[in-house]
Order: sequence, then C-alpha cells, then structure tokens
Amino acid sequence: MTGGGDAAPEGLGANVAAVLYGIGDVRIEERPVPVPGPAEVLVEVRSVGVCGSDVHYFEEGRIGDFVVRAPLVLGHETSGVVVGRGERAGRHPLGQRVALEPGVPCSRCRECREGHYNLCADVVFFATPPVDGTLTRYVCIDEDFAHALPDEISDDAGALVEPLSVGLWACGKAGVTVGSRVAIAGAGPIGAVVAMAAQAAGAAEVILSDVNPLRLERALRLGATATVDARTGSLEAAGGGCDVFVDCTGAQAAIADGIRAVRPAGIAVLVGMCASPEVALPHATIQTREIWVTGTFRYANTYPRAIALVASGAVDLDALVDAHFDLDESLDALQASRRDPTLLKPVVRVTTA
Amino acid sequence: MTGGGDAAPEGLGANVAAVLYGIGDVRIEERPVPVPGPAEVLVEVRSVGVCGSDVHYFEEGRIGDFVVRAPLVLGHETSGVVVGRGERAGRHPLGQRVALEPGVPCSRCRECREGHYNLCADVVFFATPPVDGTLTRYVCIDEDFAHALPDEISDDAGALVEPLSVGLWACGKAGVTVGSRVAIAGAGPIGAVVAMAAQAAGAAEVILSDVNPLRLERALRLGATATVDARTGSLEAAGGGCDVFVDCTGAQAAIADGIRAVRPAGIAVLVGMCASPEVALPHATIQTREIWVTGTFRYANTYPRAIALVASGAVDLDALVDAHFDLDESLDALQASRRDPTLLKPVVRVTTA
Amino acid sequence: MTGGGDAAPEGLGANVAAVLYGIGDVRIEERPVPVPGPAEVLVEVRSVGVCGSDVHYFEEGRIGDFVVRAPLVLGHETSGVVVGRGERAGRHPLGQRVALEPGVPCSRCRECREGHYNLCADVVFFATPPVDGTLTRYVCIDEDFAHALPDEISDDAGALVEPLSVGLWACGKAGVTVGSRVAIAGAGPIGAVVAMAAQAAGAAEVILSDVNPLRLERALRLGATATVDARTGSLEAAGGGCDVFVDCTGAQAAIADGIRAVRPAGIAVLVGMCASPEVALPHATIQTREIWVTGTFRYANTYPRAIALVASGAVDLDALVDAHFDLDESLDALQASRRDPTLLKPVVRVTTA
Amino acid sequence: MTGGGDAAPEGLGANVAAVLYGIGDVRIEERPVPVPGPAEVLVEVRSVGVCGSDVHYFEEGRIGDFVVRAPLVLGHETSGVVVGRGERAGRHPLGQRVALEPGVPCSRCRECREGHYNLCADVVFFATPPVDGTLTRYVCIDEDFAHALPDEISDDAGALVEPLSVGLWACGKAGVTVGSRVAIAGAGPIGAVVAMAAQAAGAAEVILSDVNPLRLERALRLGATATVDARTGSLEAAGGGCDVFVDCTGAQAAIADGIRAVRPAGIAVLVGMCASPEVALPHATIQTREIWVTGTFRYANTYPRAIALVASGAVDLDALVDAHFDLDESLDALQASRRDPTLLKPVVRVTTA
Repeated sequence: MTGGGDAAPEGLGANVAAVLYGIGDVRIEERPVPVPGPAEVLVEVRSVGVCGSDVHYFEEGRIGDFVVRAPLVLGHETSGVVVGRGERAGRHPLGQRVALEPGVPCSRCRECREGHYNLCADVVFFATPPVDGTLTRYVCIDEDFAHALPDEISDDAGALVEPLSVGLWACGKAGVTVGSRVAIAGAGPIGAVVAMAAQAAGAAEVILSDVNPLRLERALRLGATATVDARTGSLEAAGGGCDVFVDCTGAQAAIADGIRAVRPAGIAVLVGMCASPEVALPHATIQTREIWVTGTFRYANTYPRAIALVASGAVDLDALVDAHFDLDESLDALQASRRDPTLLKPVVRVTTA
Repeated sequence: MTGGGDAAPEGLGANVAAVLYGIGDVRIEERPVPVPGPAEVLVEVRSVGVCGSDVHYFEEGRIGDFVVRAPLVLGHETSGVVVGRGERAGRHPLGQRVALEPGVPCSRCRECREGHYNLCADVVFFATPPVDGTLTRYVCIDEDFAHALPDEISDDAGALVEPLSVGLWACGKAGVTVGSRVAIAGAGPIGAVVAMAAQAAGAAEVILSDVNPLRLERALRLGATATVDARTGSLEAAGGGCDVFVDCTGAQAAIADGIRAVRPAGIAVLVGMCASPEVALPHATIQTREIWVTGTFRYANTYPRAIALVASGAVDLDALVDAHFDLDESLDALQASRRDPTLLKPVVRVTTA
Repeated sequence: MTGGGDAAPEGLGANVAAVLYGIGDVRIEERPVPVPGPAEVLVEVRSVGVCGSDVHYFEEGRIGDFVVRAPLVLGHETSGVVVGRGERAGRHPLGQRVALEPGVPCSRCRECREGHYNLCADVVFFATPPVDGTLTRYVCIDEDFAHALPDEISDDAGALVEPLSVGLWACGKAGVTVGSRVAIAGAGPIGAVVAMAAQAAGAAEVILSDVNPLRLERALRLGATATVDARTGSLEAAGGGCDVFVDCTGAQAAIADGIRAVRPAGIAVLVGMCASPEVALPHATIQTREIWVTGTFRYANTYPRAIALVASGAVDLDALVDAHFDLDESLDALQASRRDPTLLKPVVRVTTA
Repeated sequence: MTGGGDAAPEGLGANVAAVLYGIGDVRIEERPVPVPGPAEVLVEVRSVGVCGSDVHYFEEGRIGDFVVRAPLVLGHETSGVVVGRGERAGRHPLGQRVALEPGVPCSRCRECREGHYNLCADVVFFATPPVDGTLTRYVCIDEDFAHALPDEISDDAGALVEPLSVGLWACGKAGVTVGSRVAIAGAGPIGAVVAMAAQAAGAAEVILSDVNPLRLERALRLGATATVDARTGSLEAAGGGCDVFVDCTGAQAAIADGIRAVRPAGIAVLVGMCASPEVALPHATIQTREIWVTGTFRYANTYPRAIALVASGAVDLDALVDAHFDLDESLDALQASRRDPTLLKPVVRVTTA
C-alpha cells in the first residue's frame, strides 16, 4: 500500500479512442483524458481482447435490451498500467501493470452484500451502453477493480483474464473438479476458455461439440480430450453420463442435446446467450435425473484466483491469441472473426511496453 | 433390535386387494399372502393415501413410459403393522407400527453409493408397473424401508409421510429456510405438502397460485400466507423477488410465471409432471439472474426426519385428509378427486386398529 | 424511496448517554447530537437490549484484545426511529421505525466482496472500543444498516433482532433444517436465541444443557424440547447422535461433551467465547466421524430474513425480555444479570413511542 | 457386463501370504485359496503399497482401538487381476485388471444411504483387525469394490489409487479449486498425495512444511510450489492467508500453526492421526475467522474419478514409488521407511504380469 493522490504524470499522450457511431461505423478520434475519481486510478491501456459482444454491438447496434444510442467506445477485456491516482487511491503504485475487471458494482445492494455482485442491478460495466469501454488510450476505474499483474503474465494474457473469468465462473457453478467428465457445446472463444478452465480444475474428459471442424481441431490443441461434429453427432451419444454440460452456443438444439448428456444429479450451465428469450428444455429429463440447470451472467470474485492460476502456468492464455491489431485498426479487429470463423481471440494493442 | 425370523402369526386374514385391470376397472379380489424375503417384513396395511399417480393410472392406464400391462395393485402411501419377519429381519418387533417408504433401491449403483438413491435405475417402487402397490391387506418390504412410527403419529398421518417427503425434498433442494419467501404454483395435494414443508422450514411467506379459488381458500387454512388466482393474477406480480419457486402444476405458463418471480440467485424446483417432455423456459431470465432450476424425482433419506417432524407437532398431516374409504370402496376413492377437485387426500383404510 | 437530505427536525431533545468510564463506572451525561454523514440516517433510539458483551466490558474493561481506554457508550442491540438524513440518504422516510445492524463493514475488501462482510477487518461496530454504542438518545448509522421494522414488531423485539441474528447465523452454519436434532450447551440468552432459531428452522428436537436448573426450566418454555443438567448429565448421553451441536458456553468440558454428541458428518458450531485462546477438542472423534467444527463471529445478511421471520409470528422475541430500565438506570441494567443469573434479556428503553 | 459365476481357472498357484504374528514378526506362509461369495470376485494380487498404518501395526501391534490379536495379513493398497467370480458377479470379465477399494460397507445404514459410506460402522476393511489384508496372492472382494483399470495405469499406480483417494478426499472436503492457496503440514506419503491432488485440482500454490529437508526437497519435485522447514519456520509466516490447510502430521504444534495460516472463511482438514485423542485448537482464531475444521476417515466414491484422473495423465502415481519388494521380502518392505525416512512409497509386487 502506497500513498495515493498522485497527479497524473506529465507527458500523457493524446487519448485516442475507437468509437462506434453506428452499425459498422467505427471512427478513431481523440477524447479528453479522463480524471480519476477519489478512489480511482487512471490506466494507460495496453491490450484489449475483442469479445463477441463487441462484435455484436458493432454488427447489430444492440444486444437484447442494451441498445447503442450515442457514440460508444467498445472493449472490456483489458490490461494496462497505472499512470495516475485519485486522492484516496493507494492500492497500486504508479507503473503497476493491472488487469481491469470491467464491471464495478454498487457494493450496497442485497446482491453485492451477499457476494454475487455480478447480479447487482446498478453495475457499471465497460462497453455496455451507455458506459464507454477500453478501446482508448486512457481509462479510469475504481482501484479495487484494477488487479495487479505479476511479471509472469503478459499484457495480452492480462486482458484475457476477463474471458478466463467467464470460464472459471461457469466451471465453478458446474462444480467441475478432479476427474469430472465435462461436455461443452460450442468451440468458439467461450467454449475454449471453459475447456481451459475445466482442464485446470482437473477434468478427466473435456468433450467439445461444434459445427465447424476447424474450430474442433483447434480445441483439441487447447485442451479438449475429444470432439463431436454437431452436424452429424451429439454430445448425448459421445459423452452420455457427463457430470457437467456447459452451453456456449445459445442454440436450442445444442442445449437440449447437452442436457440429455448429463448424468443423474449432474449440472448444466447456460453461458451462451440465446436469440429468443425462451428456450425449450427437456422437462422430463431434468426431473427424472434431478439435473440442476443454471445460467451465468459475467462473474464475481474470479480475478484474484484467475491471476494466480495463470501465473502458476496452469493456463496459457497467450495460446488463445490469433491476431494483433493497432488501435487505429480497430475496425479490422472487429471484422476479423467474421472473415475467419476459426479465430478465437483478436487482440488490439492500444499501447505496448 | 430383536431377533428376526418369526413365522407370521397364526390367524392372518385373507389378503384382499384392489386390483386395476384396465382403465376405470378396479376389482376387489383375494390374493395369496406374500412371504417375506430374508431381510423383509410382512406388513398388515392400515392406511393408504390416494395419490394423483394412482388416479392417473386408473384413468389413463399409463404415466409417460410406465404402462399398466398386467393387473396392478395401486397405492404407495402406506402405514401398517409388522406381522411377520424374514429370517434376517431383526429391526422391528412384531406389532410395530410402520410407515412404508415405497421405493427400494439396489444399494449398489453409483447413485445409491453417492446418497441419491431415488435416482437408482433399478429401484423397485410400489404401484409402478409392473410392481404391485399397497391397496391390499398384506405386503412385504425390505425392513430398512419400513420406518417405525411413534405413538404421536396416527395411521393416516403415517401413510402421508410419503407425500410429506415429496414436499420436504422439494423444499430441501430449494434451500427453504428461516425467513424465505416461497412461491408455489398449484394448490392441490402436492402444493399443499410443499407449503406445509416450507412453513415447517421457517418460510416467512408462502404464496400459492391456482385456478381454483376453493383450493386457494383451503391452502390458506393449511399454512399459505397469501394466494394468487392464476386466472387473473401472476406469481411474478404477487410474489416477485421470491427466494424460491416450486412448480406443482407441470403447466408451461405456470412454470414460466414462477421462474420470473424468482430473485437473483434464487432457486426454482419443478415437482409437477409435465404432459409434454419439453417445456419452454425463460432462458434470459435464468441467465441474467443466475437462477438455479431443477426437478425432483421422489426423494431420498426423508423418512426419518419427516417422522421426527410430524411427531414434534410441527406438521399436521391429518389435516390433509378429506375422506375415508374402506378397501372395497377403492373405486370410489380413486374417483373422489375427479368428483370434487378441492379434495386433497382421500385415504383408504385397509384395516384399522 | 424518498428524497434524502432532510435537516433533522427541530425540537430534538438533549443527547443523553450512559457512558462507561471504567470498570463498574457508568455515568449519565449529555453529548452533542451527532450529524449524519451523506449516506447516514440520524436515529432516535428506542429500545436497547443488554448483551453479555456489554456486561463484560462493564465488569472487566475488556474482551480479549478489545480494551476500553477512553469513555465508551455501551449498547448494540438497538431499535429506533429515523429523525434525520444525510444528503444522499433516501432509503427511509423520517419517522420510519428501524432495527440497527450494529456493524458497518468497508464493503471493499475480499471478505465484503465474497459476501461474508462480518469478517471484514475494517468493520465499525457499535460499542466495540473505540466505537461508541447506542445507550444514548441519538446515533447515526449508514442508512443501509438501518432496517425498516413493520408494525407487527415491537420496539423491544426490533432491538432483539440483533441477538436473533446470532442464533440464525449459528443455525445457518449448522444447517439446522426440518427434522434436525439439535444439542445446545448453555441456556443463557445466546442459547435461548439459538434454540428459538432452531425451532423456527424446523428442528424436531432441541436439547439444552446448563448448570442452572432455573435457566433450563425457562428454556423449556421458550422452545427447548428437552434439557440436561450439566452438573450430573451430558449431551452425549442425552442427545447422542445429534445432527448439530451449538456451544454457547465457551467452556472446554461443554464443548468436548457436545462434539461427542454429534453424529457422523454432523456439524458443531462454537458461538460462546472462550476465556483462553485455545481449547482441547476431541481430534479422534472429529476424524472418525468427519464432524465439521466452526465458530461464528457476529453474522451477515441476517437482518432482512430475521425481520421477516419475526413479523410472520414464528419467533416471539418479546418473550425474551425480563426487565425494563430507563436510560438513567443503565447501571442497574448492566448489573441485573449478575444479580439474577436466570435473567435472559434486560432492555433499556432509551425513549418510548 | 458379462455372465458371472465362472469357476476359478485351473492352475491357480499357492496362496502365499505375509502374516503378522506379533510386533516385528512377519512370516511367509501358505493359506487356502479363498472362495468368492456370490457377488464377489477372486483377485490375484499384483502390487501392494506399504502404508503407514501397515507399519504402525507391524511396529506397535495396534492403532488406537484396533488391536492385532490373531495373526493378520497386512496390506490394503492393492491392484490385481480378476481370476474367478461368484455366481452373481458379472461386472468384470476374467483377466480384468482392477484396483481394490479396501473397505466394503454395509450399504444399509444411515451413513451408507446418505452417501458417506466411509462412516459406516460395519465396514469391512482390509488389514484392519480382524480382517486380513492383501499381502497375499489371492483375495476375494465384492465385485463393486473392484474397479477396472485402463491400460494407461500401471499395476503400481493401480495400487496407489488408494492413497490418492485419501488426497482427493481431503482436497474435496477442503474445496481446493482453481487458484487455491493450499498449506500442508507433513511431507510424507500422505502429504505428497494431498499435494498431488491439490495440484490436479488447480491449486495455484501448494506450500508444504516438514522437519526433514530431504522430504521437502522431494516434495518440490512432486508438485509443491514452496516448502517450509518446520524446525525454523511456520506455515503461518510462509503461507498466511491460505484458503486451505491440510494436516498430515497429527502433531499439535503443526495443527495449530496451520490453522493460524488459514484465511477468514477458509477450511482446515485434519488427515494425520493424532497420538492423543484430544488436541488443543486455536478457538479464538476459528471463531473470529469462521474457519471450518474437519477430519477425514478414509474416503467415499473416489475410485472412479481417481482412476479417470490418473488415466488422463494429470497425476503420476508411479513417481511416488521408491522401492520394490517381492512378497517374501515383506518384512524388509515394512522396515524400509524406518530405515530411510525419505521413502514415500515402498511397493510389494506380489505377482507381476
């Protein structure tokens, strides 16, 4: 703990940002350098991973009830360096490399008090309208949500602690543990981090299904122990009796197949967002096997242990990164996965060491 | 513990049974007195509660994949008296009043070993085809599944430990505890036992919905703290933010309404069986609130604590009983709830003290 | 939610307080009326329950590492009425009756974020040196820790939501549920609230031990189902095979006896504080039965459900109150339980409606 | 599943056994080949790991209340090959390699029904007086407690699934998961398997303490991330704030040190047996941090997932094996760890492929 309240160092550069003005319309522009609040730090952004939700806002202008109305800075998977501190911010020294946990909850409501602050109705989350994200040189954040990164973790990996948190949260809810058999629908970036988290938690089998054979091939290199081509096979046939099913597709057929693959008293976790608000689930299977079904909404309290895990070498987040872009190539970065569906994680390097 | 292996006492009466020969066709006939296996007791049946599943077999000849092919004795909510014992059966003395837990599992499979023996694929369950039930004077059962009844518990209440177990199991899965707010869809016999179990577990609010106002009125007398007429209202409106929802209808609209009534991180338990194998559930609500959804299939390890609870006076099972029938009136008993939908629990008194 | 920031109403009385100056030295004196912080309410105190910890500070000047160095206002079991609000405080209208949760945590540390804010190292807790308590006419508190009281709950009962929280927390950790067999050592005020909480949670048996037969007699009237005179008997003999043991004595012999009364896979919760920092526990019993042993430190997230529970009528906190005192009789109130060890809960009525 | 009831194949060899006649007195003698019961298999033993409990019986003639009165065959960490089957045993074909789970419970009592069959009072456990163990060519066991070994697992590793189960059980109770910080007292064979299990479960830090620097050095090679010389250091100093402490020493000072190293709401698991029935624990620390303390007694339901884990390559049990002995060298095997305290796991190869 060091004394807080340092003025931002002289010589800050221009706060260049990639701003979404409308569907498909991303412009590079300069914005004022933000001023940290009393308990906030000013962070110079290093790496920003491109998430499916960024692409969704870029392509559709909305995700469900969240609609982009004003120009919006995208990006919420972020690492950076502390370059300024509010008057009460003493947690990090200047120069500290940090991973940014993108959602800052109210810390007062029932959900916050009970420890599931991800369900806080008043959370402020990067790149969720109307809150700007991190595809910009400087951002401010509550110092408690900037997590110090040890030297073992690269800037890119520091940014990808965010999607890893999604995987850890899903596997945590699913109770994945040593010897578990885990079935996962969807071999995209979320399926990949769930598989990595499951492997780290000791799963003996990690079976991924997808309609894209190239994605499945890559999944095998990232830690899956078996794959299923969902066009011709099923998780129920390939992985019947699994302890855990994690859906990373949001597709009804995949969800129903996956739940039928779960053993009695097993757990199914719905991570993928669904195009429609309702989905048909196998009621009789859930009842006669007493399967637990739940969904995830972001994560809570994952950053410290995600960072410890990556630092220990048990998870290699850099292996997820397919392509790098500069900040002024943000438009390309947002289009990359559409051009190549096997891409898992494009990274925008806003600044570098 | 007393020595086992007593011959059945002389003077056993005729083993008269009510046998389902086909839809709507119940015949009273005499069958041989069964002979207990080495670890079994012979029980003279006292009270048998009529369950919705009995009525279903009587009216439809099947429940899902369970089809009545040969003549079948119905009844699985049972109290009685031990009147004979196999050679290794030493748990109960002759004359012991007992409640019969109707499903005897294999005790060897993974589910049995892990403590959820209700999910045993090889369970033998009274009145589930092709296993005969207890609407008959004498039955045999593994002595470990005959649970001694203290004097405080009547014969009728002893039989109704079975449906109470359904309620305790649902409330246990739902984590109902002191101060919980509980919403229940369906004010029939299962809704009633869930409400009683929730009250016993300390729920501060127990809100029942049903389309039948007479059932709701009765529910208020049994322990519900509020009711909702499902024809005009909803649990979401009346009980929004509940900790727990328990469905006792199997109806899609009721299930979706109930899940939307659940607070973030709350639990929904599906007890009512559904006519179709799939049901549409609110995927986005389950995700954004991280609600846990599960179903129940019978119960496990509930009898000892159900009996302790009833003996303590905390639950009054006799209050559920609406009507009594003799064994040779079993046909009437099976038709009673169809004639009067407000009936909660007709009881057949096969023998009396 | 109403607008905040009301000035305190005119006509506030003098802020008379009972202040501990040293061992046995309590003086009635006037202090300035405190000014609420931005998110705080100003509360006119109604009822204050006298807790064993108050008596301990009064008699010994310290509890473990907490030493009374400056004059200290005692009291932390408190109800009152909101009479002023800070500029951002909009949760309660003026005139709202409230129960005060006495510990306000930092809401930022790992413990707060994970939902067990009672373990926050930076908690500010009434009447724990150097923080003044509530035996005074006016106090300020974070509005989120003032919990609205419905009309069904008296001022006294509102104050006693605090000790009830201790009981609920202990029973929650112990997993007390319908049909549980619960053994409790110590029939003082903490033993009493644990017994009441256990009853509310559906315990079928609640067995209390104490060395004072008068206390045991009273415990039977408050909900215990059996008692043990600890001078001649033991919980192990009387309640062997209990699901749960809760220690409310801090005495080594009682703890060891109680743990030996616990069934395999059962739970023992240590609530009573111990004179010495270490205590000998039955290692072999804990191992061969795989008993879980833990302790409690205050409580978290109990107030809402405690209030719901009391409002539902399931727990009668007024039955705990033995004696009433005016604020200027605080010295008597602090000596009352020493004079009469059967007293459970003296209450100081600082103001009345 | 194949048909059961095969006669034992012709050409069985002599059933040579290593029999403990008294302290330090092990004799090699021939015993009759046992005949499998109806649900049992006859197993030709391959590898048997020497456990500390075997050494204890050999050196002391007793462990606590278990006293060797008649000649006793030691050994309970066992792999082998099915060479005969009882009439109802159809789970394994002849020639199947199996790991033997050494305790067969009653499957009827409350503990068995609830899923913690390791706490069954009527368990029959190899090499626990008066039940003979597996340092003999042929043994019989309930077929459900012989677990099929895939080809990836060696005979030695198959035997060591037993101690790995101890480690998995401890880590399971402790809730070790991805990113956990784990402190372990004792770097002997049990400390080693706990460390391996913790690593497999994703622990980010595994800190072992011991008084023997050579053991610590070896622990680092087996997966510990840091070590503490208990003669000069402490877990509290080295690993303060751990999520989990596992004691594998049974020594009071180590236990107290370890519990003080645990963070608020953390878990301490006592695996090592203690010379005295009671042990002094830090009561105030357990209370103010609300630490959970429990002990382990063997394990339940671990074999299937232990085998899956070893087969997946995540745990290398062969790395634990220090020395091999023939059956007629059993005396040497039992003396080996006394001669060389750094030995982790001597293995007796009763037969080889």
